[in-house]
Amino acid sequence: MKNSATSRRRWLQLTAGLGAAAAGCRRQEKPEADTTPSTLGKPVSAYGERSPFEVAARALPDTRTPETAASRTPLQDSCGILTPSSLHYERHHGGVPKINPSEHRLMVHGLVDRPLTFSVEDIRRLPALSRIYFLECSGNSSGEWGEKTGRNAAQSHGLASCSEWTGVPLSLLLAEAGVQKQSKWLIAEGADPCKMQRSLPIDKAMDDVLVAWGQNGEALRPEQGYPLRLVVPGWEGNISVKWLRRLKAVEEPYMVRDETSHYTDLMPDGTARIFTFVMEAKSLITFPSGGQKLKGPGFYEVSGLAWSGRGRIQRVEVSADEGRTWHDATLQEPRLSMAFTRFTFPWTWDGSEAVLQSRCTDESGYVQPGKDALVAVRGLNSQYHFNGIKTWKVMADGSVTNA
Amino acid sequence: MKNSATSRRRWLQLTAGLGAAAAGCRRQEKPEADTTPSTLGKPVSAYGERSPFEVAARALPDTRTPETAASRTPLQDSCGILTPSSLHYERHHGGVPKINPSEHRLMVHGLVDRPLTFSVEDIRRLPALSRIYFLECSGNSSGEWGEKTGRNAAQSHGLASCSEWTGVPLSLLLAEAGVQKQSKWLIAEGADPCKMQRSLPIDKAMDDVLVAWGQNGEALRPEQGYPLRLVVPGWEGNISVKWLRRLKAVEEPYMVRDETSHYTDLMPDGTARIFTFVMEAKSLITFPSGGQKLKGPGFYEVSGLAWSGRGRIQRVEVSADEGRTWHDATLQEPRLSMAFTRFTFPWTWDGSEAVLQSRCTDESGYVQPGKDALVAVRGLNSQYHFNGIKTWKVMADGSVTNA
Repeated sequence: MKNSATSRRRWLQLTAGLGAAAAGCRRQEKPEADTTPSTLGKPVSAYGERSPFEVAARALPDTRTPETAASRTPLQDSCGILTPSSLHYERHHGGVPKINPSEHRLMVHGLVDRPLTFSVEDIRRLPALSRIYFLECSGNSSGEWGEKTGRNAAQSHGLASCSEWTGVPLSLLLAEAGVQKQSKWLIAEGADPCKMQRSLPIDKAMDDVLVAWGQNGEALRPEQGYPLRLVVPGWEGNISVKWLRRLKAVEEPYMVRDETSHYTDLMPDGTARIFTFVMEAKSLITFPSGGQKLKGPGFYEVSGLAWSGRGRIQRVEVSADEGRTWHDATLQEPRLSMAFTRFTFPWTWDGSEAVLQSRCTDESGYVQPGKDALVAVRGLNSQYHFNGIKTWKVMADGSVTNA
Repeated sequence: MKNSATSRRRWLQLTAGLGAAAAGCRRQEKPEADTTPSTLGKPVSAYGERSPFEVAARALPDTRTPETAASRTPLQDSCGILTPSSLHYERHHGGVPKINPSEHRLMVHGLVDRPLTFSVEDIRRLPALSRIYFLECSGNSSGEWGEKTGRNAAQSHGLASCSEWTGVPLSLLLAEAGVQKQSKWLIAEGADPCKMQRSLPIDKAMDDVLVAWGQNGEALRPEQGYPLRLVVPGWEGNISVKWLRRLKAVEEPYMVRDETSHYTDLMPDGTARIFTFVMEAKSLITFPSGGQKLKGPGFYEVSGLAWSGRGRIQRVEVSADEGRTWHDATLQEPRLSMAFTRFTFPWTWDGSEAVLQSRCTDESGYVQPGKDALVAVRGLNSQYHFNGIKTWKVMADGSVTNA
């Protein structure tokens, strides 16, 4: 609690709300009965595991093909801005390959002066950067376009997660290979059975893309592309190609399967938007959220996440009355570019039905739109890139639903 | 890489160095043989695990009492600033208790107007903050006082780790309990079999201490105090009492076992420093470091970690010639207060013996001392709070030792 104006404001909010919250706690004069164990606990260990009492899990799909499927981060159980690697969302098109890093290679070829092949050891030896970035599937919250909205935060918005990624700037590999002037795109290919391919504009490749080998302080997880993946900050997750084996410099995009059959946006006039890379600003209240239940009227800290592919989150507003009035939420520092930002808002629930919403603004000035405004422009044929305001309804019995 | 002056300078360093580094990579015109699997990989899963090819592990002690022992973070395998929860260092005095969170309670009592008992659910309902902080055992790098220096980064400095912690500000609990004016200290007690106790000054408790329940986006790990622990930013790790069950407001410190038999610093004149809470600025080169081997002359990116209990790291310098000349390292952003900061420095090794050292300065202006300067003041009776410059020696065959 440093003495900044923001912290002081937050402090006042907190102390105002706390009395109500703590009123539920038992008051007593005497110590608790001493229940500490009298025998030694577990010894130190090489690689720890979570408590058996903790059960947070990725939401799994009901499918007969779980190799070409998605699992969703349980954002309703999240805290802070980081997603544990074990709970990072997955989206695979041919399952998770088992790759021996000593046998894996990354080739940079095509319109380059010096085609190069790198071992994983080569890549790890090169200068590295670490950055905290969100990744989000462009299909995240696609259910929100229609009536079948997600019943909890995982189902609704769980195809988004946030990690610290470590890797070599792709620009370094391209500089060393000598990308030729006529090269305007890269074709990135993964070593999964479906050979996932995507076309990546060379300008973005030269800007801030990483060839990542680290995640949250250790090696990439297999589901996240072990041993090498692209991390394309702020752009739809599919282009951050996992199990990266090949980068080919070319003049034009290849119009590969996953940029034609998938990952295009069908507009109301029948045309399709293609290469809609940037994930626009979005926010979600994670508490209270669908499937949770409030224990009765009183103080609650509304908490949630906001993110934008265009940079930092500048502002988050919260409404508890279906958008009639909006109030500034507190943004947790540090607010990092193209990373999750945690927001909180003190709220006293009076026990009647309430409609909770959040609306974020990013540093470009873009304001997260309401669902109606989004539909007015994009129509209802689109499956991807829904970033409208999400609504949770608190019922009089305290249960929270997707309204 | 944004267009800041720092980034431009780094860019120039990187491209200058890359040619040499990439020279080791195989150059070829034709694609690699396609070794991608033709059968589906693993399906999506509820809670992921790391690759079976990854073996980074906490360094375990050779002891017959691993319940009262320490395990060490393999900093030589680290990347970025975060420590995976599975690799966070441990220091237990009675083993890791298995605690059912629904039965655990935290009591705040003593010189307070309203003694309170909180369930874990109560605590989680209160306003929460998340902050990235290092924790470090005051006994970290104690071997460096003498001749038996750690042979690798884990053995030398591995009793330090960095996580995103989530919890309720302790100041809120104290305000609600109504700490009385004459109360100057808190006695914190854990629910482990040894009932770890420490005395915490009330001023620090009211400043930035958290009662934490979250770590790196999920619940605290059992080894880190599940379900509740203190996180006392910048102070010696032992005072961040794990498995927290009791906070008693008192007038004087209790001089408990672990502040008298342990965690005091015996000075040359025979007196003992006590309550030396702050972990002073410290840095460590993690690559190249003891036990690693360079593959031959050429470019290497020296990488390491720096941290200070007094705030942000302001500067890190690297020397490759036993301290005769020092060069500014690049500091990775964001540089957070009382968190690990990653530094890098481009180095071309000529193949002869070299002595690598790092020296950091924090925002208070404090400069990490050399070992001799530290010993001149503190003598050689001290076991705790060694923060002198660490030396690694690169031998002509590329092997790196603790010199």
